[in-house]
This record gives sequence, C-alpha cells and structure tokens, in this order.
Amino acid sequence: MPTLRLALAQVNPTVGDLTGNAETVRRTSRTAVTAGAQLVVFPEMMLTGYPVEDLVFRKSFVTASRAALRRLAADLQADGLGAVPVLVGYLDSDEFGQTADGAVAGGETADGGPATSGTGPHRTRGPRNALAVLHGGTVAATYFKHHLPNYGVFDEDRYFVAGDTLTVVRVGGVDVGLTICEDLWQAGGPFAVARRAGVGLVVNINGSPYERNKDDVRLPLVRRRAAEAGATVAYVNMVGGQDELVFDGDSMVVAADGTLLARAPQFVEHLLVHDVDLPGATTDRDTDEVVTATGTTDEVAAGTRYTAGDGRTTMRIARVAVTDTLPAPAGPPADGGVAERVADEAEVWSALVLGLRDYVNKNGFPSIVLGLSGGIDSAVVAAIAVDALGPDRVVGVSLPSHHSSGHSRDDAADLAKRTGLDYRVEPIQPMVDGFLANMSLSGLAVENLQARVRGVILMALSNQEGHLVLTTGNKSELAVGYSTLYGDSVGGYNPLKDVWKSLVWQLASWRNADAVARGEQPPIPENSIQKPPSAELSPGQLDSDSLPDYSVLDPILVGYVDGDQGREDLVAAGHDPAILDRVLRMVDTAEYKRRQSAPGTKITIKAFGRDRRLPITNRWRERG
Amino acid sequence: MPTLRLALAQVNPTVGDLTGNAETVRRTSRTAVTAGAQLVVFPEMMLTGYPVEDLVFRKSFVTASRAALRRLAADLQADGLGAVPVLVGYLDSDEFGQTADGAVAGGETADGGPATSGTGPHRTRGPRNALAVLHGGTVAATYFKHHLPNYGVFDEDRYFVAGDTLTVVRVGGVDVGLTICEDLWQAGGPFAVARRAGVGLVVNINGSPYERNKDDVRLPLVRRRAAEAGATVAYVNMVGGQDELVFDGDSMVVAADGTLLARAPQFVEHLLVHDVDLPGATTDRDTDEVVTATGTTDEVAAGTRYTAGDGRTTMRIARVAVTDTLPAPAGPPADGGVAERVADEAEVWSALVLGLRDYVNKNGFPSIVLGLSGGIDSAVVAAIAVDALGPDRVVGVSLPSHHSSGHSRDDAADLAKRTGLDYRVEPIQPMVDGFLANMSLSGLAVENLQARVRGVILMALSNQEGHLVLTTGNKSELAVGYSTLYGDSVGGYNPLKDVWKSLVWQLASWRNADAVARGEQPPIPENSIQKPPSAELSPGQLDSDSLPDYSVLDPILVGYVDGDQGREDLVAAGHDPAILDRVLRMVDTAEYKRRQSAPGTKITIKAFGRDRRLPITNRWRERG
Repeated sequence: MPTLRLALAQVNPTVGDLTGNAETVRRTSRTAVTAGAQLVVFPEMMLTGYPVEDLVFRKSFVTASRAALRRLAADLQADGLGAVPVLVGYLDSDEFGQTADGAVAGGETADGGPATSGTGPHRTRGPRNALAVLHGGTVAATYFKHHLPNYGVFDEDRYFVAGDTLTVVRVGGVDVGLTICEDLWQAGGPFAVARRAGVGLVVNINGSPYERNKDDVRLPLVRRRAAEAGATVAYVNMVGGQDELVFDGDSMVVAADGTLLARAPQFVEHLLVHDVDLPGATTDRDTDEVVTATGTTDEVAAGTRYTAGDGRTTMRIARVAVTDTLPAPAGPPADGGVAERVADEAEVWSALVLGLRDYVNKNGFPSIVLGLSGGIDSAVVAAIAVDALGPDRVVGVSLPSHHSSGHSRDDAADLAKRTGLDYRVEPIQPMVDGFLANMSLSGLAVENLQARVRGVILMALSNQEGHLVLTTGNKSELAVGYSTLYGDSVGGYNPLKDVWKSLVWQLASWRNADAVARGEQPPIPENSIQKPPSAELSPGQLDSDSLPDYSVLDPILVGYVDGDQGREDLVAAGHDPAILDRVLRMVDTAEYKRRQSAPGTKITIKAFGRDRRLPITNRWRERG
Repeated sequence: MPTLRLALAQVNPTVGDLTGNAETVRRTSRTAVTAGAQLVVFPEMMLTGYPVEDLVFRKSFVTASRAALRRLAADLQADGLGAVPVLVGYLDSDEFGQTADGAVAGGETADGGPATSGTGPHRTRGPRNALAVLHGGTVAATYFKHHLPNYGVFDEDRYFVAGDTLTVVRVGGVDVGLTICEDLWQAGGPFAVARRAGVGLVVNINGSPYERNKDDVRLPLVRRRAAEAGATVAYVNMVGGQDELVFDGDSMVVAADGTLLARAPQFVEHLLVHDVDLPGATTDRDTDEVVTATGTTDEVAAGTRYTAGDGRTTMRIARVAVTDTLPAPAGPPADGGVAERVADEAEVWSALVLGLRDYVNKNGFPSIVLGLSGGIDSAVVAAIAVDALGPDRVVGVSLPSHHSSGHSRDDAADLAKRTGLDYRVEPIQPMVDGFLANMSLSGLAVENLQARVRGVILMALSNQEGHLVLTTGNKSELAVGYSTLYGDSVGGYNPLKDVWKSLVWQLASWRNADAVARGEQPPIPENSIQKPPSAELSPGQLDSDSLPDYSVLDPILVGYVDGDQGREDLVAAGHDPAILDRVLRMVDTAEYKRRQSAPGTKITIKAFGRDRRLPITNRWRERG
C-alpha cells in the first residue's frame, strides 16, 4: 500500500489577481515540497480567485487565466518543483480553441467537441470551472466541475458548462479522482463514478463560503462521500474574504472508513501536510470508460438550499498517467493533526474580522472610519475593526446631538480608550440647525435629518482623509427597515449586515469574556451591552417604541427571512399573530432600503443581498 | 379548415397581486368573449406577475397561486365565460401534493412523479413556471416551461424545474401546442416537438422584457419558430414596469409561412382579437408519445446572451381534449391589424415613461421630487416624469450654490414653466456653510459636500411630504463613477440608469421635436440641450475636465460594458489606448458605487444591476 504525503494548501487568493495568486502557488508549493509533499492541492479557482462572477464573460480574462496557468506550470518547473504534481483551480473555456493543456482536455474529444450530448437546453461548450494538474512544466491533466450550484449566492449555471468526465490521474502508483466543490454535495455524482473507477483517493477543491454551523455539516458530508467513493477524500477549501463572502478553510483528510485523519483550523492560511496510506492502482484499467453511477438523493443537511441530484449520473472516466515516480519524502512521517473546534461566537467573530480585513486590504483602503453612538452595534463594529486592522487604522467619531444622552458620549469615549482607536467628537447640532432654519420639517423628517447629517460628516471625513466608512446596522434592523437611508446606512461595508441583534449582544459578551480569559482589557463597555437600545433621534426614544423586543422579533425574522416560512408556519410556531403581521409588513416594505445597502459579511444560511432576491414592487402580503 | 377567433390579452399584471391580477383576467376575458373570442390567452405568470424571484421559495405564495388559479376557473364559469378556454400563466409546484389541476398535470404520472428522469444534476420536482387552460370551471390542462433562461437578468434555473412534456390541447377541432417564453428562443425545442405532434397552432406566452431593438429580433424569431413547428404562432407578451424591467407587449400572430397576421402596439394594454384559419386536428392521434426532436442551433441574434440549446430535445407529448364545441363568433370577421413600428427614440421614451409610472403607482407613491440643475439629465427626467404622472405629481427643486451659474437657475425655471411641474427653490449655501464652519474640508470633499447637502434636502422633502425621490445619473456617469455617493445618487428610482449620455441628448431633441409636430410646447429648454455639461461643484467646472468627450466615452463604454470586450478588442476597434486605459480603470473601480445605486429601467442588452454582476473586490485590470 503506497503512502502519499499530501499537502493541502489552505490559502487566500484575491479575485482577478492572476499574478499574485500564481505567486502564492509558487511560494506555497516550495514550502510544501520542502516539507516532503508528493502531491500539493490548492483551492477551487485558485488562480483567478472566487467567485469571479461576470468576469467569466470577458474573453480577455479567460485567455489570461489559461495563459497564467501555463506560465505557472513552467515557473514551477523552473523553481525545481516540477517533479511534484500541483493541483490548481482555474478558469478555462472550450469556446475558443483548445483548453489550457494545449492538447486533449480530460475526456473531451481531440477536436474540442463534447464527449456526450445532454438532453437539456444547456450548452456543451463554454466557460469551465476547472482543475489542472501541473507536472513537469506542463498541464498534465484537467477536470471540469460536474455539479454546478445555482442556489443561494451561487449562479454557476449562469457561468459554466458542466463537465461530464471524471478525470482520474495516476500519481505515484495511486489512482486519484479529481472533483470540485459542489461535486461533494451531491450523492450519486462524481464520487459514485469514482468508486466505479476504483480510485484510491478523491481530491475535492473548494471555494466554500462560511455559514454558521457549516463546518458541522462538512465533516459528515465528506464522510458520506468517502464511503460512497470507497476512497480517502482530501478536501481543500480557501480562506479569506471576497465582498460578502468569507471562506473559512476547514480543509481535511478523511479515510474511506470515515476516520478524520487531519483537519486544518478555520479562518487562517494553513498548509496541512499529512501522510496517507492509499491502495495502489490496479494496473489492468488503462482505457477510458463511460459509466452510469446511481446513488441515493439523501442530500443535504442544510435542507432546501442544496438541490439534490436525481441520483443518476452518466460520466465518462478519463485516465491520465501523470507520474509513477515521486520524490521520496524526507524526515519523519507527517501528521497534519486535527485542529480543535471553537465556540460558535468565536467562529462568527473570526469570520467578521477576516471578512472586514480582506475587504479593506484587498481594496487598498488605508483605514476605516465609523460613527460611535455609545450603543452596542457601533461598539461591536469598532472592536471587530480594531481586531481586523489594529487601532491605528480605525477612526471613531462621536456625533452627538441635542438628543444624545450623557452616557452615549461617555460610553463612546470609554470604548475608544479601551481599544486605543483614533477618537474624535463632531457635534452635529450646528449643521442640523442649518437645515431646520431653512426648511419646514417635523417628526420623522427631523429624526432622519440628524442621521443624514451624521452620514454627510462621515463621508466628508472619508473624502478628506481616505478612510472607508463602515456602517453598523445589524440584520434585524435591515430586515424591518429600522434605519435611515443615506443616514446611518451610509458606508462602504457593514460587518453586522448578516448578524441578528440578539447575536450582536452575544458576540459582545463573548469578546469581552474572551479578553478577560486572556488577561486583556475587554474592548466593549459593559454599559453599551446592558442599556436598552435607542436610536436617540428624538427625546427619550427607544427601539422598543417602534419594534417588538428583540427576543420576540429575531425568532420571527429567522423564520421569515432565513426560513422562507409563511404566516401559517409562523403562527404554528407560536408567534403572536398581531406582532407577526406588523413585522412581516415591515420586512416586505423595506426591500427598497436593502437594495441600496452596503455589502457585509455573510454568516447565515440566507444573507440579504444575492442570497435573497426579492422584488421591490411586490403586493404579496402574508395574511391571516 | 376551422377558423378560431383568438384574443391575445396584452395586459399589465402586478407582482404578488393575485387578487388584482385575477380580476384583470376576468374583466379582460369578458371583453374578449363579448368580441366573440373563442380562445383567450394571457401572458406568462399572469396570476402572480413576473418575475416573482425568491417568492418562489415561499410555500405560502405557491399555495396561494394554485388556489387563486382554481378560484379563477370557477369565477370565469360563474361569469358565464366557462365555455371559452382561457390560457393563463401562473406559479405551480409538484413539490407538495398535486399540481393545480388537482389531477394529472400534462405528462406527469398520476402520483405526481416525474414522467422521465434527466441525466443532469437538476431536480425532477419543484416549482414550475406554468400555463393553465381554464375551461368549464376547471383547470383542464397545464404545461410547464421547458427552456429556462439563466442569463442576463434571468435566474430561472434558480427557481424552476424544467417541464419535459409538450401539452397539446384540442380546442374547437384544432390541436394547440402550449409553450412559454424562452421555449421560443431555442431551436430544436418544444416547437420542433410541436411539429412532430402535428399541431395547427402554437401559443407562446411571455414575460419578455424590453431591450432596444428587441422588437426587431422578435418577428424574425417568431417566423423561424412558426416554420419549425409548421404552424401558426400566437405570441402574447405582457406590458408594464416591474422594478428594473419594463415589458413592451408587441404581441402578434404569425402564420406558418411567416405572414404577419396581426401585431399589437408596444407599451400599452391591448386586446388583439384576430380570426385565424387553422388546419383541423387529425383524429388518429389521441395517445401520448415520447419523441426526440432535432433542430439547428442557429439561435440567437442577440448573440452570446442567449444560450443556444444543443438542438436535441426529448419530450413527451401529452394530449388533452378540452372542448370540441366553441361558441360561434358573432358579427363580422375580426382583424387585429398590424400596429405601426415607431422610431427608436419613441420606443425608448415610452419604455422610460411606463417604467417610471408603474414603479411609482404600483408602489403607491403619491408623487415624485427631483433636483433641477438646469442641465440635460434632470430636464429629461422631469419631462419623463411629467409624461408618466402629469405635472401635478411632479415636484422640481432648484438647489443653487455659489457655483451655480445664472443660466442654471433660469433653465430650471424655464423647464418648470414649460412642463407645469411644482417648482421650488432651495439654496444650499447656508447648509453647506454650516459644515464648512465646523470641519476642515477641501477639494473633492467640498465638491461632494454640496451634492450631499442637496441629497439631504430632497430626502427631507420626501420624508415631510411623501414624494419618491428620483435620481438622474445617466449610464455613462454610473459607468465611470462620475457622481457623488449619497449625493446626486440619492433617490428611489433612476429613469436614466440605463441611458447613455449621448442618448439622453437624442431623447431630449426627439421629445421636443415630437411636441412641435403635435403642436405642443417642447418641454425641454433648448439651452439645457446645447450647453456643455457641468456638475457645477467648483468654479467653472465642466464634465470635460474629468472625462473624455461623451462622443469618445460612450462608444468605449458600449464595448466594455454592454459588449464585455477586453482592451485588445477595444484597441482594435480604433479607440485611443491612453484614453481607454483611463476609462476602463474608472469603470472597474466604480463598482462599489453602482452596488448602492437606485433601480432604474433597463433598456439595453446589459443594464447595471442584476444584468451585470461583477465583484467589487477585483484586481483584474485590462492592460496593454
């Protein structure tokens, strides 16, 4: 039984940065080979970053991806790393000319025509979500993603043509099946075909975005696929933020019998190097086959979001002999270890910190600015920002008005002192009075005016000093529209966009407790956590004047927004019908505000944004 | 050869308004039957409106659509209209229980299971984009859309399961094939199967959004499908605005030999009643069949946006005998006539007027407000608004600063006088000075401040008086980011969002000339058309200080944005490389502004918004 030293490269690519991403592959491959790795695996769309969205339609970009792949193969060889197969995700296309290996792509006929023809309306040529095996300075083999996710935040039917061939590469005497991301989430798909192909290892490369509890789903899922394939599975996921998505890593190796052999930590770059014993390839199979695999459609834990296949997949198997001889691994056996799981709050906090840091850094902002009200939302965002960027890159501005309580200013100042951020005070009343003196405004118009003056001040600071403005409205507020458009919603990024208010409090308490446990100063003033929430736009105003208590509101919103539940389901779940009707109406009529809201890190199963697409013009109302 | 009197109901449904839309069907059916119609056809998703987007995932909504359909069938019978088949688009699902006909849906087996199983990863049960034949108080037959568009603004793979059965209903001795929208855009699909079924008429119901020149593509397309099916085609499209889409109608009847028999005007509700001679049904075919049709994949004129099928479709044919006896048509033969085509500018103007009117009215706004700068963009938007809503529902506010020229104020006042809108003047300098006195701002920060103060004033008027704020940035400005976020971009709707600056001028000239031709006052001051464009945010500022001339800029943008062309293509097209590099960079780095921009009517092949999905975080730059 051959032993292979695998290196799973859990790295952080940037969308569009072909040069930088290729550099990451070279650098990481060198480290891996130095550690004796015999097979190095990078994530889905490593070379282009993921998701590249409509860049797929830009021929110049596709061409550049293919060229960068070939250049990378040559560079790895020049680096003296050509003897070790390196697996890299990239963007390919068979719309114009040959695929990136310059010859026959896995299972495609030599003239570039499709190996089989589907019966549906789908194209047989076009852009491909692809995986390449780089070896000896060339592109030795390719695989095209078979199952294309087209739900939630994913639009892969928009972008890609599905591959219909399982590529099996022989590496150091082991047959290795190649798969990409969603292929793992479907029973009866490429993993079932991999069993028919008799592989010893299935590699699955991912751009799998973080969601709360997703890591709890992943391990059982990888186990089921390992059982289906009858082979060890090497699961590699990227880390890092990309607009509203944050990738959490969680790369792992699982044996055919379900044993978790090694697992990387979440939210950090990590090179997981691990020796695995694998069955040697049977030498009597060396021709291509066409097989139909049948599986059960038991997928998937996360429910309706993941579309189950029909449990019947016809694929060709294409076999490519890459190399029989691999460099012998030096030194002692490699054990990647199993990273410890962390608490839910720690996981969410890490996601929010990484999502913000990468948005700020990958977009080249020197610093961020936000308004500090003394309330819980801005306090938590400030703490996240300081964790992400350090206190020197965070500017907090207290923007008091007539209605601001003394404790608001004190709590904001206290937060600044605890975190060390750059603190300023900019009273808004003179500017507010300028509008009131020249216009006849009353009621809500005056309330919103204050929020908008604050927005203008923060944007002026942004223009003057170059900061990215952060906005701090939590998911509960966004859901019911409890915010002022172009007021407190002003900002280029919103770390709390997908965080329910109840969870904001939970995160604050967790972060403080975690600081105490580490012997550090808790960043968030206890008073900001304890006091009743208020927008402070009119005298004595409290959120509870306009909204149900968050302990009542949030469970309704979770059901309606995240769960797509209707009124009947929600009443059956025990919610008060009168409150329910008021809340659902607020959610329905706030869609126009959400459409203009800042991006923010997705952490739930259904984030506002591309994950939940509802019409603004919509007369449907859930009714009793 | 039987003669059928068709009534194509080109009507304007509202998303989510099941009750109102059903009322429209009843009212229109009554008119049609009074005119002697023997077959009445309504658009795609008539009952729910279109597109309903993620409402598809709300079980309560799907259930309500099915219930509304059955109630509508009963109501039509109660109205005395039950003898005439009425074809209505609606939302169905076979995920939970039976489909809406309460029995066997076309081609589905009686237990609700799929008739055939695909080979792809797609579900075999789920939500359906459906068509029902209502007759005799019941749902007599159904059809499920076969080709699901998943490009451009469409996400139908996200929402629907494709039907695999062509339903053929026998009505008054004629076999009628039922199809929906995208089915028309694919060769070798249901129309080819319809030929195998030997139908005399194919009905195609649509929610087909307007794009410039799309009507020029439609007629040849319908002709090709009529030839493919060897049958007359009745094409019915809705009219009206739905968020960023506007449906233009353009319903028509085309004979098998390509003769255009009747065609409705665009952008208005219209009942097209027309007698067609059709071949009688051959009586020897009365069992279901499974056929594979083959066509050529020559589609489609609009290029890469429309995915060509693979030219091979396997579908079941399900035959349903609806009625042999139809009421005899009264009076003289019906000729629907062929509506005259109008000029491109007239078409665009109508689209913008209807898009705005429906957004305002369907969302229940009493009126709109916008800032009038004296420039061309706000003048054109004001003229569109007055055409859409009448002058009494339009408030225009001049917001002069130190930098506003005398002519700006004069031109704004002149526009108000010409159109009769509610005109106000609100000088911004006192408010601007309030900020400048309390903050240290310079340069761009001061320029943007002025735009933001204007935004605050308009939003305050909106809060105080209930108007919807319109924003007026054209597509060229949005493309290069030549606007102030939360400043001039403030607003709930933007009629010019998808209109290039060059076209804005063209539209202004056309609208004025059209007024003269009708003996009316031209609404737009000639001076607003003639003067060089300026944001007037600093002394003597002109657009040309920051941007290439629009005659240079717009063709670059058309290629890069609408055409997905890369730098190489654009250089080959003759654009100056230095200008090109500057412009492409501006487009790439303005994505964050567009992400928070107001919705606006789509009129081009690729509108900003759901039509063009690009990452904000994106290091890819087209380079020489």
